[in-house]
Amino acid sequence: MPLKRKDLLGLYIISGAEIKEILDTSEAMKEIFTRSVKKIPTLRGKTIVNLFFEPSTRTKSSFDLAAKRLSADVMSISKSTSSVMKGETLLDTAKTLEVMGADVVVIRHSIPGAAEFLANNIRASVLNAGDGAHAHPTQALLDLYTIREKKGKIKGLKVLIIGDIAHSRVARSNIWGLLKMGAEVRVAGPATLLPLEIEKMGVKRYTDLDKALEGIDVINILRIQLERQARGLFPSINEYRHFYGINQERINNDDILVMHPGPMNRGVEIESAVADGNSSVITEQVTNGVAVRMALLYLLVGRNNEDEKIV
Amino acid sequence: MPLKRKDLLGLYIISGAEIKEILDTSEAMKEIFTRSVKKIPTLRGKTIVNLFFEPSTRTKSSFDLAAKRLSADVMSISKSTSSVMKGETLLDTAKTLEVMGADVVVIRHSIPGAAEFLANNIRASVLNAGDGAHAHPTQALLDLYTIREKKGKIKGLKVLIIGDIAHSRVARSNIWGLLKMGAEVRVAGPATLLPLEIEKMGVKRYTDLDKALEGIDVINILRIQLERQARGLFPSINEYRHFYGINQERINNDDILVMHPGPMNRGVEIESAVADGNSSVITEQVTNGVAVRMALLYLLVGRNNEDEKIV
Amino acid sequence: MPLKRKDLLGLYIISGAEIKEILDTSEAMKEIFTRSVKKIPTLRGKTIVNLFFEPSTRTKSSFDLAAKRLSADVMSISKSTSSVMKGETLLDTAKTLEVMGADVVVIRHSIPGAAEFLANNIRASVLNAGDGAHAHPTQALLDLYTIREKKGKIKGLKVLIIGDIAHSRVARSNIWGLLKMGAEVRVAGPATLLPLEIEKMGVKRYTDLDKALEGIDVINILRIQLERQARGLFPSINEYRHFYGINQERINNDDILVMHPGPMNRGVEIESAVADGNSSVITEQVTNGVAVRMALLYLLVGRNNEDEKIV
Repeated sequence: MPLKRKDLLGLYIISGAEIKEILDTSEAMKEIFTRSVKKIPTLRGKTIVNLFFEPSTRTKSSFDLAAKRLSADVMSISKSTSSVMKGETLLDTAKTLEVMGADVVVIRHSIPGAAEFLANNIRASVLNAGDGAHAHPTQALLDLYTIREKKGKIKGLKVLIIGDIAHSRVARSNIWGLLKMGAEVRVAGPATLLPLEIEKMGVKRYTDLDKALEGIDVINILRIQLERQARGLFPSINEYRHFYGINQERINNDDILVMHPGPMNRGVEIESAVADGNSSVITEQVTNGVAVRMALLYLLVGRNNEDEKIV
Repeated sequence: MPLKRKDLLGLYIISGAEIKEILDTSEAMKEIFTRSVKKIPTLRGKTIVNLFFEPSTRTKSSFDLAAKRLSADVMSISKSTSSVMKGETLLDTAKTLEVMGADVVVIRHSIPGAAEFLANNIRASVLNAGDGAHAHPTQALLDLYTIREKKGKIKGLKVLIIGDIAHSRVARSNIWGLLKMGAEVRVAGPATLLPLEIEKMGVKRYTDLDKALEGIDVINILRIQLERQARGLFPSINEYRHFYGINQERINNDDILVMHPGPMNRGVEIESAVADGNSSVITEQVTNGVAVRMALLYLLVGRNNEDEKIV
Repeated sequence: MPLKRKDLLGLYIISGAEIKEILDTSEAMKEIFTRSVKKIPTLRGKTIVNLFFEPSTRTKSSFDLAAKRLSADVMSISKSTSSVMKGETLLDTAKTLEVMGADVVVIRHSIPGAAEFLANNIRASVLNAGDGAHAHPTQALLDLYTIREKKGKIKGLKVLIIGDIAHSRVARSNIWGLLKMGAEVRVAGPATLLPLEIEKMGVKRYTDLDKALEGIDVINILRIQLERQARGLFPSINEYRHFYGINQERINNDDILVMHPGPMNRGVEIESAVADGNSSVITEQVTNGVAVRMALLYLLVGRNNEDEKIV
């Protein structure tokens, strides 16, 4: 049952079977990492454009390396370097890239729905690398991959997401994906950052971290966006650490997987002893991110490449 | 009659026969776009440096993709990332890139003559990607290519360029190229932006757009540089749109080609209905831009490559 | 006696025999420049990350081109584009790049010891591209290479380094390297920029330039960091030029090699007649910089590549 989509916009619109196919393909891609020579010619002659309207190093680098490992050409356009495009509509910018020959446009944008808007209006594949507080599907897929790799399954696991759930596209995408794969999902954080409506998605909501942690298999610790504090939504850093920071005492079971999408504020949402401890799979998440992005590029534009040759 | 030049500085110094050779080569390059695998090994082992002292996304991306499709290595240096070079002369910067192994230096600079100055002082090929209000030959060549592709010829056509002629390197380069290829050229715009001396180039000058449009085959709509308005050279945006904005009523003949170098200010110099209408070849221009730049890179440094091999 | 190191941190910790091996390998790499096709597949499938926390065009471009000539994939991360990593520790950033698959992390950082810290904590090779006022080994190696190439030897030569010795990682690295290779080293500059302790490194200290120049074989002119003047450490530009600027009168012997790491302040620390004169090897230094960096990349991660293939 091959993935028959032009775009990957979010886990809200794809099926559990499709998620499984992506994870299985990622597994094959990850094997390339174990070799010294990490390159395969699958996407030679294809052009991937990273169109980033928000600053990003981690996600952009991951897509960049994923594309290069598949021998694609990569072009990165960041807001800071695209001043000329000011005054131009997003669609004109994307169409310009498409008619220059882009096969995939990887887009990060502050407006929810920006990726879907593009996908509906250009022929090139669109890969959502984060649109506002809406979706960040490749992060969720790498989280799912990491859980499946370490636990052998996703179904039936109890997964807790901790932090600013209200503003987090990572949380939202993880919830969609985890529920589709049969996990039980809990969310925890300060009440101001934990909308009541979140329960309608099918998750359990906790303001008491210790209760949320009972019987848990996986915890996914969100990065605290320190700039939100200024807007009065947050308790102080010290209060946050006290009530929601993850330290060794709170993770007293070696079987609990500790995840974080990075970059970490060590000493705030996560103590160093946990980040670097035996339960942590945070660096594996980063590696798996490249594998998942390779898989998606391959699934979206690589397979029609097989019977062609480069002159 | 092969192009025997080290550099491409402007259409003012090359012949109609040379322009024809560039357009013919571009045609061959454009065929590569129709394939799924868009890459040829022609410039493997060559190094193209994009040296951009003015912000640009569109032209830089186009050169970047053109070079990659020919399998060259590309290095981009923008003003913002080259702060270390402050205090260094332009020539020292360019010589540094040359002795690092650059085969072509693609330069955009705010000073008219910057490209020619470099060309006279370094051994690497220099490709002018825009020097002040002076010349922007690759834009003009892609415009010529698009006209020839759509109309089957250039000679004898009536072409109208609309906008800020006084400050436009696009206008100037188009005029040189169109006249050399035998077209009749008209320019239209507010009197403050339309120097009387322009007629000495051999074009007809109009402040009345409707008169300028009579019997026209091609219109090339320049981007309005909104920042010039502050300097008092411009009428208001509303006045400009009223007197010189291109809308459906003004383009009442389906045979008129509508061109724009981009990025567009929709609703100012061009209405969306025109930009996206049947007469518009604006997206084709972008595609042709990559083909033309591939052709130039090939003609300048690719042909001596043919009997060599990569180890 | 092959270089058996994971990292290159500074010339202070490597032996004269190792320096010799690097210079010999650089010689082989430089031969590639004489060909029209400058690319070899030695590092295909390897990933080099340029992690630059200080602005740099020259050194970053040189590493970039060196890596591309060896067919490695290169990813550049600059401070300006890595705002997302704010708040993340340097080690977390580097580990992230490593687990994404970086084989070499080339780092420039304002803090002395940053490269060594990384080298001790990640498995990837670390190449110091400048850490504060501490070390800049690739610059010193290219200087050594240039001296050996032009003079046929280093041992026994009298080399004078002129400028702000106190704050210069270039001076420090050159001193280590030159002494290990058997040269006699002198330093000259204003007393405020010439610490007394420098003599403990085994060099001779001069505030009188004319005395320092007596019988000299090579002079290496440091770039004046004009911003230091504001801090009161410097004489005026005119005074500096008068007492320490190198002009034709001071270089009255054609056998003296004139070097400068660039970018030059022409008319301040060096007159144009000298910079472009027969004694100058400043552009050769730039070319040799690419060769030396190719050699280092090859020596650190290339040799274990030989019995592997790309699928």
